[in-house]
Amino acid sequence: MTNGSLSEIYAKAAYPLLGHGKRNVQVLKEALEQYEGELDSDMYGSGKVIESFQVKMADILGKEAAVFFPSGTMAQQIALRIWSDDQGSKKVAYHPTSHLEIHEQDGLKELHHLEPTLLADRTRPVLLQDLREMEETPACVLLELPQREIGGQLPEYAELEAMSAFCRERGIKLHLDGARLFEVLPYYGKTAQEVCALFDSVYISVYKGIGGVAGAILAGDVGFAEQSKIWKRRHGGDLISLYPYILAADYYMEKRLPLMGRYYEEAKELAAYYNGCHALKTIPRVPVSNMFHVHSDLDKEQLEAAILEATRETGVGFASSIREREGGGCYYEVSIGDRYAEVPQNALQQAFQALGRKLRHTAEL
Amino acid sequence: MTNGSLSEIYAKAAYPLLGHGKRNVQVLKEALEQYEGELDSDMYGSGKVIESFQVKMADILGKEAAVFFPSGTMAQQIALRIWSDDQGSKKVAYHPTSHLEIHEQDGLKELHHLEPTLLADRTRPVLLQDLREMEETPACVLLELPQREIGGQLPEYAELEAMSAFCRERGIKLHLDGARLFEVLPYYGKTAQEVCALFDSVYISVYKGIGGVAGAILAGDVGFAEQSKIWKRRHGGDLISLYPYILAADYYMEKRLPLMGRYYEEAKELAAYYNGCHALKTIPRVPVSNMFHVHSDLDKEQLEAAILEATRETGVGFASSIREREGGGCYYEVSIGDRYAEVPQNALQQAFQALGRKLRHTAEL
Repeated sequence: MTNGSLSEIYAKAAYPLLGHGKRNVQVLKEALEQYEGELDSDMYGSGKVIESFQVKMADILGKEAAVFFPSGTMAQQIALRIWSDDQGSKKVAYHPTSHLEIHEQDGLKELHHLEPTLLADRTRPVLLQDLREMEETPACVLLELPQREIGGQLPEYAELEAMSAFCRERGIKLHLDGARLFEVLPYYGKTAQEVCALFDSVYISVYKGIGGVAGAILAGDVGFAEQSKIWKRRHGGDLISLYPYILAADYYMEKRLPLMGRYYEEAKELAAYYNGCHALKTIPRVPVSNMFHVHSDLDKEQLEAAILEATRETGVGFASSIREREGGGCYYEVSIGDRYAEVPQNALQQAFQALGRKLRHTAEL
Repeated sequence: MTNGSLSEIYAKAAYPLLGHGKRNVQVLKEALEQYEGELDSDMYGSGKVIESFQVKMADILGKEAAVFFPSGTMAQQIALRIWSDDQGSKKVAYHPTSHLEIHEQDGLKELHHLEPTLLADRTRPVLLQDLREMEETPACVLLELPQREIGGQLPEYAELEAMSAFCRERGIKLHLDGARLFEVLPYYGKTAQEVCALFDSVYISVYKGIGGVAGAILAGDVGFAEQSKIWKRRHGGDLISLYPYILAADYYMEKRLPLMGRYYEEAKELAAYYNGCHALKTIPRVPVSNMFHVHSDLDKEQLEAAILEATRETGVGFASSIREREGGGCYYEVSIGDRYAEVPQNALQQAFQALGRKLRHTAEL
């Protein structure tokens, strides 16, 4: 039993539970249908297509200016570099599971020579106590909301406000890794502007909950935005045309920002199904966004076999890959999008009955 | 009379002489019509869409491996960085008008801390004598074929072979800035493989003569390509989806690679018209690719006024902007694409008669 066969079975499942749908060319074609062919391309960061979307995003995020980037990797390294130069310190601080630390081939260190301090640990998000315990004052603290690699955990909003106040008092810049910012607003009961007001700079992704093709927004004050454009050129991200990503971002943002509350409610519902299942539990137990992780003390192969059988029997796709946990057990990520609402309730109930039965059987062997 | 009005008049001209057409959303829509919506996206550099195009380009360029990049800026900095690390030297060498030197906000220096030596001068491309005169042995020499910012000049092919041999003998890596490589093959009478065999690494653009949406290819041996993927991730260029650029690149490459010979012949024809015109001359006098520069000792405002009038009178669009030359006079760039063939010969003749008349009149004032 390999991940390959799990991902194959998932891809063919009648009722996949995750995400918005297949990442295929139709995603772009659907978006482009809304636009006239005569619409001019952006040109190296200028032109109506990019400028109007940047103004719209600055407004949504409550910042003076926003800049469209081809990727969050590029946008966030640049944000930290700007604050590092601004503060005259190479020190930055973030969670050990930050995208910058584990998914970017150390670009932050190799290209910008910044020196990250790791805050908190893999069991929880960064809290005020972690900032208080920092031995050196960094140029910038990066907070990821929600903390994706630990199931999408969040600090409580009062804690977030306290961390923001702490940084302001000490002249530490606070940057938001908001790859999934819109996905946490229903739990916080806040607007994007309210959350972003706690930060000096903000990155959001346009292809996570929003479901665009690729791309990111970096927002802050005008001086920050202008500097970020210079670094964008240096990184090779100031493309002659970014419109394929921008038009898709705008289209899917209009379509899906109103659905973030639904995704959140559905994540809580699905997590409850999982927590009622033998040998499975979710982190967080009650989701605080559209995502959570499903954990098990079973071996990866055992969980994979049970899921494969339950999917074959009921047509419900639970996961396309499962990861081993350090020290035993395994887990996988669940992220709710458009597809969940298309799954009939009775199929869902049958699927979890089947999965629970197979897991009890596995445990009894 | 401002550049604005020249670009407006050019945009409305019945017979624009430059390029393939407007850079608008239709360029992407036309390409996407050829592909099924069910075609899966590439995923962070993997998947059929990106891998098959990379194999195809490696084959066309005669290199072991090719990697798709969102931009040439990113691809070329990375190529020089890899050779610098490989050779244990921060020295690289290129022409003073290299894209890396004048259009990238010093990314090569700010991100990679490389130290370029400038070869030759603004009157001519890099020649063997320039390599011989280098005081230090660099890790890498970059040659741009054709040298865009000086009208698209080229070294003769024998000179190119001699430079390649010189670098091989001394262990200097030779990198090709082939943003417009396909555009020079008709003049050289060589295949892309033959030219690329002279170089250790090669960059080509997919949106100059080819006319795609954005993107670049970097090619070399397998070890070089694998390293370039790591740096692509570090730069923030390893996007979840690059397919909008890849599909357009593939489509327009099929369409336009066979037309490079025609563009070259048309450039020679158009340059002859210009050289028959009072107060104008082209560099090179006889083009060696699809491009050349039009130079005049007149003031920019005078040339602009004459062109504006000739375009208004005949509907032929000559230029959308004119640049001042250091030390007086002015020039603009001409690049031939699909549009030139759509201009009726009699309109062209009338346009150059009108332009010549106006320029003689200007000179007599």
